[in-house]
Amino acid sequence: MANWVRHTKPSFVSEVLEFARQDDVISFAGGQTLDVRLCMTEETKEAYETVLNESAKDILRYSQSEGEEELRRAIATVLTEEWCPTHKDDVVVTNGSQQALDLIAKAFLRPGDVIAIESPTGLGAISAFTPYHPLFVAVPCDEEGMLVSHLEQVLRQHRPRFVYLMSTFHNPTGRTMGLERRKRIVGLCKAAGVPIVEHNSYEGLGFHEHSLPTLRSLSDEVIYVGSLSKTLSPGLRIGWIVGKGPVREAVKLGIQATCQGISVLNQRAAAKLLLHPNYKAHVGSLVAAYAERMDALLQAVRTELPEGCTWRSPAGGPNLWLRLPEGVSALDLLSLSMEKNTVFLPGRPFYIEEHPESEQTLRLNVTNASSERIMEGIARMGESLRQLLGVPHPVLTRS
Amino acid sequence: MANWVRHTKPSFVSEVLEFARQDDVISFAGGQTLDVRLCMTEETKEAYETVLNESAKDILRYSQSEGEEELRRAIATVLTEEWCPTHKDDVVVTNGSQQALDLIAKAFLRPGDVIAIESPTGLGAISAFTPYHPLFVAVPCDEEGMLVSHLEQVLRQHRPRFVYLMSTFHNPTGRTMGLERRKRIVGLCKAAGVPIVEHNSYEGLGFHEHSLPTLRSLSDEVIYVGSLSKTLSPGLRIGWIVGKGPVREAVKLGIQATCQGISVLNQRAAAKLLLHPNYKAHVGSLVAAYAERMDALLQAVRTELPEGCTWRSPAGGPNLWLRLPEGVSALDLLSLSMEKNTVFLPGRPFYIEEHPESEQTLRLNVTNASSERIMEGIARMGESLRQLLGVPHPVLTRS
Repeated sequence: MANWVRHTKPSFVSEVLEFARQDDVISFAGGQTLDVRLCMTEETKEAYETVLNESAKDILRYSQSEGEEELRRAIATVLTEEWCPTHKDDVVVTNGSQQALDLIAKAFLRPGDVIAIESPTGLGAISAFTPYHPLFVAVPCDEEGMLVSHLEQVLRQHRPRFVYLMSTFHNPTGRTMGLERRKRIVGLCKAAGVPIVEHNSYEGLGFHEHSLPTLRSLSDEVIYVGSLSKTLSPGLRIGWIVGKGPVREAVKLGIQATCQGISVLNQRAAAKLLLHPNYKAHVGSLVAAYAERMDALLQAVRTELPEGCTWRSPAGGPNLWLRLPEGVSALDLLSLSMEKNTVFLPGRPFYIEEHPESEQTLRLNVTNASSERIMEGIARMGESLRQLLGVPHPVLTRS
Repeated sequence: MANWVRHTKPSFVSEVLEFARQDDVISFAGGQTLDVRLCMTEETKEAYETVLNESAKDILRYSQSEGEEELRRAIATVLTEEWCPTHKDDVVVTNGSQQALDLIAKAFLRPGDVIAIESPTGLGAISAFTPYHPLFVAVPCDEEGMLVSHLEQVLRQHRPRFVYLMSTFHNPTGRTMGLERRKRIVGLCKAAGVPIVEHNSYEGLGFHEHSLPTLRSLSDEVIYVGSLSKTLSPGLRIGWIVGKGPVREAVKLGIQATCQGISVLNQRAAAKLLLHPNYKAHVGSLVAAYAERMDALLQAVRTELPEGCTWRSPAGGPNLWLRLPEGVSALDLLSLSMEKNTVFLPGRPFYIEEHPESEQTLRLNVTNASSERIMEGIARMGESLRQLLGVPHPVLTRS
C-alpha cells in the first residue's frame, strides 16, 4: 500500500459521525446531510424530473470534461451576482469541492512540495492533499486568518506550491478575513508568484447584509473552490473550480484521468436549482435558520458552560470554535458527552501540526439540530465539563 | 504544475473524438455515448423516477463511502450469477471504472513503483495511472494476453506493485484469455504475492453462449474492476471494485479523500436497473446488435481493404484490432480518412512503450454505427488505404 494509506489511522472522525447518526443523539459534529427541512426538497425532485423529461438521452451520456455548459453558466451567473465576476469558461465542474481539492493537488503537487496552510483547517483539505505527500507548513493566524508577516516569511523560506485558505466563514473556526487583509495577502502571493486556493464552501451563508469580495475577485491568479453541498445539498455532488487557463486545463485532464466526467443528470438538475426562482429565498431562509441556531448556541454556551471557555461569534456559517479551560482535554469531554448522547468534533484532527491548543479546542456545528436540541445538548456538555473540572453545577449549588 | 501535467500533450484522442461527434461522420472511434437506441432509455428514466418518489430525502444526502448497500447487493447478485461469487461487502462503488483505476493507483503506488501491464492497453488505465509516476513494464502478449514465461520474468525482475490486465474482450485488441492461461497467471501472481487488477468493462458482451471464469473467481487476491458504462450507460457514472479487506479499506479512504461518496440517486437508479426484469433481455439485444455489427465489420474489412491487412475476430465486445500492411502508418490513414469524414483511433496512444507495431495498428469500434454505415465507412477507409499504397481500386481496375 502507498505510504498515506499505511499512515492513516482508523478514522476517529468517521466513528464519531457514525455515532452521531443515531436519532437520539444530539449532534454538533456536522459532516452529514444538510437538515432536510432546510433543503429545496420538492424543487430538487422537480428539477430532476424536468431534466428526465427534457432529454432522457442526456442522462445516458458522458459529460464534457469541464462540465455541462448549462451548469457552468448558472454557476458563473450566481458567482458574478454575489462574489466575483466569473465567465462560464473559467469554471470546471467537480464531484463536490472534495474532488476540486483532489484535482488541484493532482495538478500542482510533486512529492515533497510545500502547501502553506491554516492550522486548524478543513478535514476535507487534509484528506485530499495528504495522499500527494506534501509538506504542510502552517501559517500562524489571528482572528482574521493568516498573518501577513508570517505568510511573507513562509513564502520566502518555503516557496510553497500553493497557499490554501478559507477567507469567509472558515471551517472549523468560523472566522472571516477583513478587506484589508484580503488585499495584502493577494498582493503578497501575486508578487511571489504563488497561487492561492480560496475554498469558501459556506459563501452566501452570512448573517449580515454586506459581503466581502472574494480573493478571486481581487486577482484572477486566485483559484476559487466552491460547492452546492452547503446551500443546496451534498446529494447533488456538485462543486467547482474557477481558475485561469492552465489550471483549468490541468483540472480537466484530472477529470478525464479520475472519473471521465461528472453525472450529466446531477449537473443539469443543479443548474435548474441555481436559477430557480425560489433559490434566493431558500438561501435566505437557510441563513435565517442558521442565525437563529447560532444565537441559541451562543446563548447556551454563555449560560450552560462553566467559566474559562472562550469563543468568537462567527459572522456566518454553521460553526462555532470553542476553547476549553486550561488543562481540559476535548477528547475527555467527548467521551463523557457521548455517554450523554451528545457529540461534537474535537479540535485535534483539524490541526496539521502539534499545536498548543489542539487538545483544548472543539468545533460545534449547528447544521443538524434545532434551537431546543442545541440548548439541551450544550447543557449536557456543560454538565460533563463540570464533572471534568470537579466544579459543582451552579443551579444545583444554588438550589 | 506536476510532471504528469507538463508531459501530457494536447490530447490527440480528444481531437479525434470531438471530430467524431459530427452527425455526418462515420465513427469507429468509440469512447463516446452508447448507441441510445441500444440503451434501456425508458427503464432508466423510470428507475430515476422511482427513486425520486420513494425517498426524496435520499437524494439530498452523502452516500456511504463504500457505496449504497442496495447497489452493492445488486452488483454482487449479477456478478455471482454470471462471473464470480461475490458478497456485497466485497464491493466498493466508484464513479465509473475510471475512478476505480484512479483509486487503486492511489491506494497502491509510491512514485517509481512498477506496474506490469499489457501493451497495447486501455487509454483509461494509462491516464489513470500516469499521474502517480509509475514505471510501466510491458509484458509481451500473444493472442490470449500476457505470456506466462515473460510475466514470470517481469515479476521476478521488477517486483511490480500490481499486474493490470483485461482478461475478457480486451480493449483495444478484442482478445480473450483462455482458461489454462487464466489459471497459470493467477497461480504465478499468487505465488509471487503480487495482486492482479482485472478490468473487464465488456464482461457480458460475448457473442457465444459459454463464458470463462474471471481471474477473480479463481483467487480472492485478484482485484476485479467493472462498470455499467458498457452495458447500461456511461451516464450512470457507476463502476466498482471487488477486493479483499485491506484493498477495500484503502479504496474507501480514497473515496473520502477524492469525492466524499458517489451520488446516491445514481446508485439507487443503477441498482433498480441491474435487477430490472428487462435487464437480461437488454444485455441480450445489445450482444445481438454488436454481433451483427461485428459481422458486418468483418465482412467489410475482408472485402473493402486491400491485401496485407490482418486482424483477429473477437469473441465479444465492440472492438476489432487491425494491422495495416508493412510501411503504412495508421496516422497517415487517419488523416486521409478524416477528409472522407471517417474516423478511428490509431494504435499509438494505446501503447505504453515504443513498439514495432504501434504505428501500424488501429482500433475499429462498432458502438456508434449501424451495419450500413460500417460498410460505407470501411469502403472509404479502403479507398484511403489504396491511395496510400498506390494501389488502384480493384473494381475501377476491373471495369
